[in-house]
Amino acid sequence: MRVFLSLIVQFLLIYPISAQDLNNEYKKLSVQIVKTALTDQKGYQLLKDLCAIGPRLSGYPSSYEAIDWCAAQLDSLDCDRIWLHSVMIPRWFRGETEEAFYTSTNKTEKQELNINALGGSIGTPQDGISAEVLEVHSFDELQEKAEQARGKIIFFNRPFDQSVLYSFAGYGGAVNQRTKGAIEAAKVGGVASLVRSVTSLNDNVPHTGVMYYEDGISKIPSAAVGVQDANMLSDALKDDPSLKLTLKLSCENLPEEESYNVIGEIKGTKYPQEVIVVGGHLDAWDKGDGAHDDGAGCVQSLEVLYLLKKLGIKPSRTIRCVLFMDEEQHQTGAKAYGYYASYAPEKHLAAIESDRGGFTPRGFNVTADPVIIEKMQNWLPYLKNASIDWIRKGGSGPDIARIKNATALIGYVPDGQRYFDYHHSANDVVEAVHPRELELGSAAMTILTYLISEEGL
Amino acid sequence: MRVFLSLIVQFLLIYPISAQDLNNEYKKLSVQIVKTALTDQKGYQLLKDLCAIGPRLSGYPSSYEAIDWCAAQLDSLDCDRIWLHSVMIPRWFRGETEEAFYTSTNKTEKQELNINALGGSIGTPQDGISAEVLEVHSFDELQEKAEQARGKIIFFNRPFDQSVLYSFAGYGGAVNQRTKGAIEAAKVGGVASLVRSVTSLNDNVPHTGVMYYEDGISKIPSAAVGVQDANMLSDALKDDPSLKLTLKLSCENLPEEESYNVIGEIKGTKYPQEVIVVGGHLDAWDKGDGAHDDGAGCVQSLEVLYLLKKLGIKPSRTIRCVLFMDEEQHQTGAKAYGYYASYAPEKHLAAIESDRGGFTPRGFNVTADPVIIEKMQNWLPYLKNASIDWIRKGGSGPDIARIKNATALIGYVPDGQRYFDYHHSANDVVEAVHPRELELGSAAMTILTYLISEEGL
Repeated sequence: MRVFLSLIVQFLLIYPISAQDLNNEYKKLSVQIVKTALTDQKGYQLLKDLCAIGPRLSGYPSSYEAIDWCAAQLDSLDCDRIWLHSVMIPRWFRGETEEAFYTSTNKTEKQELNINALGGSIGTPQDGISAEVLEVHSFDELQEKAEQARGKIIFFNRPFDQSVLYSFAGYGGAVNQRTKGAIEAAKVGGVASLVRSVTSLNDNVPHTGVMYYEDGISKIPSAAVGVQDANMLSDALKDDPSLKLTLKLSCENLPEEESYNVIGEIKGTKYPQEVIVVGGHLDAWDKGDGAHDDGAGCVQSLEVLYLLKKLGIKPSRTIRCVLFMDEEQHQTGAKAYGYYASYAPEKHLAAIESDRGGFTPRGFNVTADPVIIEKMQNWLPYLKNASIDWIRKGGSGPDIARIKNATALIGYVPDGQRYFDYHHSANDVVEAVHPRELELGSAAMTILTYLISEEGL
Repeated sequence: MRVFLSLIVQFLLIYPISAQDLNNEYKKLSVQIVKTALTDQKGYQLLKDLCAIGPRLSGYPSSYEAIDWCAAQLDSLDCDRIWLHSVMIPRWFRGETEEAFYTSTNKTEKQELNINALGGSIGTPQDGISAEVLEVHSFDELQEKAEQARGKIIFFNRPFDQSVLYSFAGYGGAVNQRTKGAIEAAKVGGVASLVRSVTSLNDNVPHTGVMYYEDGISKIPSAAVGVQDANMLSDALKDDPSLKLTLKLSCENLPEEESYNVIGEIKGTKYPQEVIVVGGHLDAWDKGDGAHDDGAGCVQSLEVLYLLKKLGIKPSRTIRCVLFMDEEQHQTGAKAYGYYASYAPEKHLAAIESDRGGFTPRGFNVTADPVIIEKMQNWLPYLKNASIDWIRKGGSGPDIARIKNATALIGYVPDGQRYFDYHHSANDVVEAVHPRELELGSAAMTILTYLISEEGL
């Protein structure tokens, strides 16, 4: 009898709340998190402020203002620890001039094209580069036409594939023209590369992004052109294959400089050495506000801390907001943080990244042991309150993927149908983000963060 | 041995394709449906054309043009049968004048308000109604303040609840002010009702919608006011509770007239007497294009037929596109079709309605026997290709709900976070519809229609 009583006491000590009550606590809390996010719209207010600062491309003057602004937000959230994590960043500046036009052989009138230099590109001589154009749709086609390429501007014109469900696959099917076009063009003697904007929108706004060079292959200038102008140029080339295109870019690569990941955390009450990272990247392309990419991820990560504080939640594990620098170009911020995580005397239990825009939540992609993924799938009833329908095995995100020793890497997945309308372009402004959609993302990340913190993995 | 062989032959006759092959056929076809929808964007092209016709409010001249246009589309789709299903519709016309302004007692300057008459409202005398204003937030509050109400314009100012996940619940929590405000106001001697627009957007565009009168209670004019102007008026009333508001409306109710549901079908090859309806409503509020509500549902229903035809699919059961008239006001079209279905010598196996906007697919709500819902849930692997994550028991839609003898009533559920930004207002234009999101909805409806057609319920 005593043994039995002692067992009951033990049970009550271990389970002060019954499983059912616990369940209800999480249920109530998840509803409260969603309600508070949608009512306060703190993330959306933060996004408006962040986007007002100015271009956040790494190394740009206003990127440092944005760093200070983020640190101030973390401070106002009363974080237990805030630090600027030093990173050396290579810099690329767009400069004033980006201009392209063509003139047909039998005409004197110039036809201007909407272009943006690609990130990392060298500039042209001040008078620009003028040359005939070779249009291709793939690197294979370029190989086949290699003999016609010498001395020409190579025009990569393969469109974004609209026919696939996952817009990221549409993007993935076209983006090598941007990232590697200059290398392939230079190999066959091209003097510059002009790339059709990789976008799901049929407008004429250029979409920029990073491009690479390869050691031992000459560096040539590279720019993106709006899709409507890409179509116009393609038509013009059919009429007049020897039209002349002039490209002027004043962009330049500058010596590397110190910049920072911005980090703030709430210390865990029970397991302070176990860390859950929530993050996005602070740098953004300069033509728009970087509202979806990745202002949204930054303010959602800040809002996770805000919502925990606002609701008086004291998490058992440490919740750390990491706003990464230089994702768009060299991921030096992510690499530095990953290196830090590799030796820090703490355990990275999980990292959650938001870098797919501020759209309505759909699910979470998880890179972890199947048992852990299954455990997380049991939490879907709570996450459904924030419009999360699934948790799946899948890739996480470019920044947190560098935290090699984390138990679970988790990518927040909002609906993706509109993302590439805005991505890397002047379209990516705060007005393109819907407050309710953004806030539900913050709520989803907060609920998942809290569940990991309390339940472990 | 012979018995065994005969069994094999029987098996081969019953299952000419193995279960696995059948599975793969559906898989392939569902991918093809999605690909074709996203590539051709037929629905989006149709939506642009439909929206260009003009206001489709039932009885409006251009609603008849829209009817003809739909019939022409069904004809160009080579339907086996097209018919205009006669409906008598009560008519309400907005007229030229809708104006509201207030003047504070100590000022002479008029402050104009953005308003729209509510559908069904009587007009005001030509000089308008001028009266003091009583602001309330609920019918209970109106009862409490009944003594102050006589001779006043009752201003219903309860906001849309942003804190709930389902925007339809936010709408549901505020819309009785619009539908029944004039009745409740008249009961306590109010001379007109002015209602805060029921919208999730913080702009100043009025959102209209239907309102009702009750027999034996006097009819008073009723209008919706933009939310920013509602806030301004509320502030002004705090400063000056006896300010005078003037309301001028020239709207009127006209005698009923004949209009039409537009219907077209592809006859089933095996079970022509078993019908699957796909539909939306053709009428729309007049201030915008009715692009989301419910141009989207109409063109998606047309596109189901288009996609089947384009892919050479000959469905076993009859697929019938029904574009309902007069959903927004009296549902006379739905009632007429429901009555027809009650005696027609055919079986309504299922009806699928799209009337929640042209946003990214999330799921289907189904009203049917649980066994049928479970059967449909087994089809999710095919539907996931069109971004459908779930099939649940739930309400279908206001039009098909009148088909009382259908085996399954199915509501298509796209993401709902942005719907009430546009709903019933000048914001509801074709530019607010994203082609990829719209097309995925068409694809989802087509896949489900085809599966029901081939597998039965």
